[in-house]
Amino acid sequence: MKIPCLTLAALTLALPLPADEGMWLFNQPPGDLLRERYQFDVTDAWLEHLQKSSVRFNSGGSGSFVSEDGLLISNHHVGADAIQKLSTQEKNLLRDGFHARKPEQELKCLDLELNVLQEIEDVTARINAAVPKDADPAAAFAARRKIIAEIEKESQDRTGMRSDVVTLWQGGAYHLYRFKRYTDVRLVFAPEQQAAFFGGDVDNFEFPRFDLDVAFFRAYENGQPAKVKHFLRFSPKGAQDGELVFVSGHPGRTSRLLTVAELEHQRDQALPLRLNTLNRLEVLLGNWAARSEENSRRAHDDFLGVQNARKALNGKLAGLLDPELFSAKVTAESEFKATLAGKPEFADALAAYDRIAEATRILATQAIRSGLLEGGQAFRSDSFGIARTLLRAGEELPKPNGERLREFTDSGKESLELNLFSEKPIYTDLEILVLADALTFTAGQLGSDDPLVKQILAGKSPRERAVELIQGTKVRDAAFRRQLYQGGASAVAAAKDPMIELARLVDAESRALRKVAEAQGEIRQQAHAAISRARNALLGTTGYPDATFTLRLAFGTVKGYEEDGQSVPPLTTMAGLYERAKEMNYKPPFDLPQSWVKRKSRLELKTPYNFVSTVDIIGGNSGSPVVNRAGEFVGIIFDGTLSSLSWDYAFSDKQGRATSVHSAAILEALAKVYPARELLRELRVGRLNR
Amino acid sequence: MKIPCLTLAALTLALPLPADEGMWLFNQPPGDLLRERYQFDVTDAWLEHLQKSSVRFNSGGSGSFVSEDGLLISNHHVGADAIQKLSTQEKNLLRDGFHARKPEQELKCLDLELNVLQEIEDVTARINAAVPKDADPAAAFAARRKIIAEIEKESQDRTGMRSDVVTLWQGGAYHLYRFKRYTDVRLVFAPEQQAAFFGGDVDNFEFPRFDLDVAFFRAYENGQPAKVKHFLRFSPKGAQDGELVFVSGHPGRTSRLLTVAELEHQRDQALPLRLNTLNRLEVLLGNWAARSEENSRRAHDDFLGVQNARKALNGKLAGLLDPELFSAKVTAESEFKATLAGKPEFADALAAYDRIAEATRILATQAIRSGLLEGGQAFRSDSFGIARTLLRAGEELPKPNGERLREFTDSGKESLELNLFSEKPIYTDLEILVLADALTFTAGQLGSDDPLVKQILAGKSPRERAVELIQGTKVRDAAFRRQLYQGGASAVAAAKDPMIELARLVDAESRALRKVAEAQGEIRQQAHAAISRARNALLGTTGYPDATFTLRLAFGTVKGYEEDGQSVPPLTTMAGLYERAKEMNYKPPFDLPQSWVKRKSRLELKTPYNFVSTVDIIGGNSGSPVVNRAGEFVGIIFDGTLSSLSWDYAFSDKQGRATSVHSAAILEALAKVYPARELLRELRVGRLNR
Repeated sequence: MKIPCLTLAALTLALPLPADEGMWLFNQPPGDLLRERYQFDVTDAWLEHLQKSSVRFNSGGSGSFVSEDGLLISNHHVGADAIQKLSTQEKNLLRDGFHARKPEQELKCLDLELNVLQEIEDVTARINAAVPKDADPAAAFAARRKIIAEIEKESQDRTGMRSDVVTLWQGGAYHLYRFKRYTDVRLVFAPEQQAAFFGGDVDNFEFPRFDLDVAFFRAYENGQPAKVKHFLRFSPKGAQDGELVFVSGHPGRTSRLLTVAELEHQRDQALPLRLNTLNRLEVLLGNWAARSEENSRRAHDDFLGVQNARKALNGKLAGLLDPELFSAKVTAESEFKATLAGKPEFADALAAYDRIAEATRILATQAIRSGLLEGGQAFRSDSFGIARTLLRAGEELPKPNGERLREFTDSGKESLELNLFSEKPIYTDLEILVLADALTFTAGQLGSDDPLVKQILAGKSPRERAVELIQGTKVRDAAFRRQLYQGGASAVAAAKDPMIELARLVDAESRALRKVAEAQGEIRQQAHAAISRARNALLGTTGYPDATFTLRLAFGTVKGYEEDGQSVPPLTTMAGLYERAKEMNYKPPFDLPQSWVKRKSRLELKTPYNFVSTVDIIGGNSGSPVVNRAGEFVGIIFDGTLSSLSWDYAFSDKQGRATSVHSAAILEALAKVYPARELLRELRVGRLNR
Repeated sequence: MKIPCLTLAALTLALPLPADEGMWLFNQPPGDLLRERYQFDVTDAWLEHLQKSSVRFNSGGSGSFVSEDGLLISNHHVGADAIQKLSTQEKNLLRDGFHARKPEQELKCLDLELNVLQEIEDVTARINAAVPKDADPAAAFAARRKIIAEIEKESQDRTGMRSDVVTLWQGGAYHLYRFKRYTDVRLVFAPEQQAAFFGGDVDNFEFPRFDLDVAFFRAYENGQPAKVKHFLRFSPKGAQDGELVFVSGHPGRTSRLLTVAELEHQRDQALPLRLNTLNRLEVLLGNWAARSEENSRRAHDDFLGVQNARKALNGKLAGLLDPELFSAKVTAESEFKATLAGKPEFADALAAYDRIAEATRILATQAIRSGLLEGGQAFRSDSFGIARTLLRAGEELPKPNGERLREFTDSGKESLELNLFSEKPIYTDLEILVLADALTFTAGQLGSDDPLVKQILAGKSPRERAVELIQGTKVRDAAFRRQLYQGGASAVAAAKDPMIELARLVDAESRALRKVAEAQGEIRQQAHAAISRARNALLGTTGYPDATFTLRLAFGTVKGYEEDGQSVPPLTTMAGLYERAKEMNYKPPFDLPQSWVKRKSRLELKTPYNFVSTVDIIGGNSGSPVVNRAGEFVGIIFDGTLSSLSWDYAFSDKQGRATSVHSAAILEALAKVYPARELLRELRVGRLNR
């Protein structure tokens, strides 16, 4: 994997961004760039339409409205969490698919929240003014937390909209995002997982691909399909080779502006540690799933999530271990530092690099303990997560809004309660399995003789203790949760629930670790802000900040690439699906669903199926609409090539590509494989048939 | 998992061993115990017959002669390494099985060595006399190494037999073992792996089981089937519920006499670290295997080995994390220390515990680096193993025998060369896969900025470096290996082979780490010897030493157990195989081979298939014959229950059981499923039909 062009290097030299790089803010779109390079004029109307058609799935992905009656499309794998929660041993919707022919048949998701961005407001000055200069890091953090909570609450009270302050440029700027929030979301259509994720882990992050990775949901308001003004029209023709396309979605997180010290920490400590955990979980869940059909069903979505994360992280790590990528980072940083050196006005920005390195070092010393306790890895289970939320809600909610832990502020309350009171199924056997494993891992990481480990295990083996905790706790009963949440700290204490008491046992140390992380995070944030100010002063304010799971605009062209001396064309066809299945002897994960076997002869096999483009994306962009110049829906992002995994650190379009399902394939499959005529009609006319 | 009775506790109290514990030396058999408990007289003739019928597979298992013409039986999974090496893309013997109807059709294994124990001689006094009192650890180690090499060479020269000095009681005694060695071993019969390992990883270490885990080989001498005087007669009736049975095999390693400090190190450091590696390899190999049939074939034996080790280690770790087991260890040790305290003659034994703790601590500080470099985990690949052997052979062989690294002494030369010149297939793609992963892991463990890591990676990414090394080295060419081995150090240097040069690059540090390990090992060994002497003086010399992959006699009864309130009967039947397959919907690993599907109606389905007994075994015992009082072959060990995994540290017959294939099932399957009439006839009459 070679990364010829790098963000930082480019920024340092103040050259235009190479290739089609960039995850642009909707309030700072790359207008000049698109005009110069593609002769395309980004109008405000075009932007607003795309913005308000775009939907964030709070479970971790993107989507878009595709009819005025609140119909929306995302990836199957983005919706999988919601679909899994609607599945039972008798009705395995994740495996077998689902199709509601009328709104009355649509299934309400248990805890899915969607957000649609309405407004952005720059609040940088107000926040910076509220944080006293020369305050110590803890005080600065507290002041910043307070003003952010204030701004969010004020905005929510005034507009009724979900209001989040988003930290951009690692602290260089703060924007207030206002979202329309939907919490009544219903499942309309899902193909069989085997159609959506044909090729499984083997073909994940590879290309050519043949996946119908889509699912349809509908947003409701007051029990009725939501009426939306902005939605995308499906293009039957879809994306064409060489065409300029745009992606509007929610990239989760990139690390392109991290310093070398931070990247080294990622490379040598953070990523290896996370991979260790992911490998362990993949083996644990995979082998447990193999024991029975029902185990497999229960663990399936978690298992695929772990596999996906493991493959993605291996790709990221490979990127950081690529000397070309890393040395470009080192060079760019030292060149920029050389630019700063000798300029007294940038002395603070120059010194900021050392402050970041020191904060990173301090955080590294407590990383394992912090991940286990505050990160909750020591107690991995839904039961523990709920127990700790109840414990902390009892303690946090009585405090003034601005002094609470971030997840308990007023502006987040609706989302918090949606999750806490979700009636999602939680399986005792799976809970015991993962908790016993987590406790075993904790004993190994901290040593069995660690005093806290001894208290956690309470004289039992990890397995015995896990059984005792999971069987003893009542937090899996939603009524019990409501009662404790409403009863506050005294009700929580009176319940003497063993899992809540475990959360209490570790909470003092856990909060102390978090306090250190917050203070060091504040130091890093201020340091990054200083660097960011220097960068803007020297190079201008062009460019885009690292991804923050908020709406971004990206663009690129539908384009193949070279690999091992072979040219890989940008589009696959439906015929390719059947060829790939045959080539792999139809063995899982290359078996075809019966619907696709039976209806092969009806299909126009030349229909484009999946395609790649040079659009700059990252995890979280899954489900993002791909639109053409006319703003029509021509495809939907669902993956990236292996080379795109290092885009976390630096973009390159040499072999890195974003992978999408083609709009024509979606229409063809809905028309002929499933037949889903009502859905197809709604996509064509843009509204429900009533 | 509860362990009610413990070795050390029992020894301390000088009570007879609980239950049927013990891996007894053939020169110190448990005669009194068997007489008292089972009214069975162990005669010298009975013992000699069993001993000389027992065979060690140097690849890591056990077996036994079953005809006078050198026919021998072991487990399929013990022979799998040899069978894999005989397999090709066209002929997948591991998957499809193999059957030679006549000796001419038998396939010569590429590097399989068998050993048959002939004589044992106690050489403790001679060795101790050669090690100067008060020598520093390094000097003591060197003196011990020298005298051991001398004894071995002398014995080999005099008798022509393979001669190994075996360290017993962690250094309390030294016995010289003389073996007859067979290096021409041919494959006679193997069932399909799906019959041998039905249920795969899911049912591994579980019971009830339904596995035909057997394979037949034949030892040859001078190109002819070897004539052997001692072999076991197959019992058609086989093992019966409640019957006393014996197992004669080669348990690889137990840790029952480790001190608490050593066990803590195992629990908190060594086992978690090894599990980390095994989980990583299981994910790596499993996902690579899923990419194609041929990948799957190439990686298969390695993959199963990793899965097996991972499940076994998890069981061992669970044992150490069981407070009942561990606190019994702590109690036993402190009681024994209390017995020693205040007795001046045992002051050294008492102080020995601290010396062991200190040596363990020192070894722990270098464990990661040592595992990566001297353990070779940083360069995991057959190519690196060969390269280092060539490098070191060039340096070691010119030295006096007594000063060489252990693996290069004269007595081990024949085995060394058998391995080094093996024409086993080595797959470039698989080598690159595992080496790239190992280099990535190394960078994470030591940090990419570690000077040695930088030299190892040579400015390339792990993947690029792995490709360069594996494609650049010639060590996979056996002729090249012979040439370098015979040419010595100068030929090795002249070759400038990149993999050998990598081995050279790390060899100085690698050897230094080994020197520290040897010196600290010497300290531990002397300390254990002191404790062992004290134990013998206080409690008598009854008992058995920890396992050492040498021949041991164990005994027990065929007996079921209770689990979750259910009673598990000790024997399964062939009918159970078909029921289990049906229950699991015939999905891999519960699919049946075609031969078993087709011939089901011919089978006597009541035939006993697998059975459990209370015999004390551990890894390495796989393939051990199970015999009755008459010394007849009534079964073959192939597994233990999950609870038996903690037998590494302490025996308990509460739920721990050894699992065997029943002799009647072997005969029934050979008669009706495969039909293998010639083999069946040889088993019945005890010789080839000529």
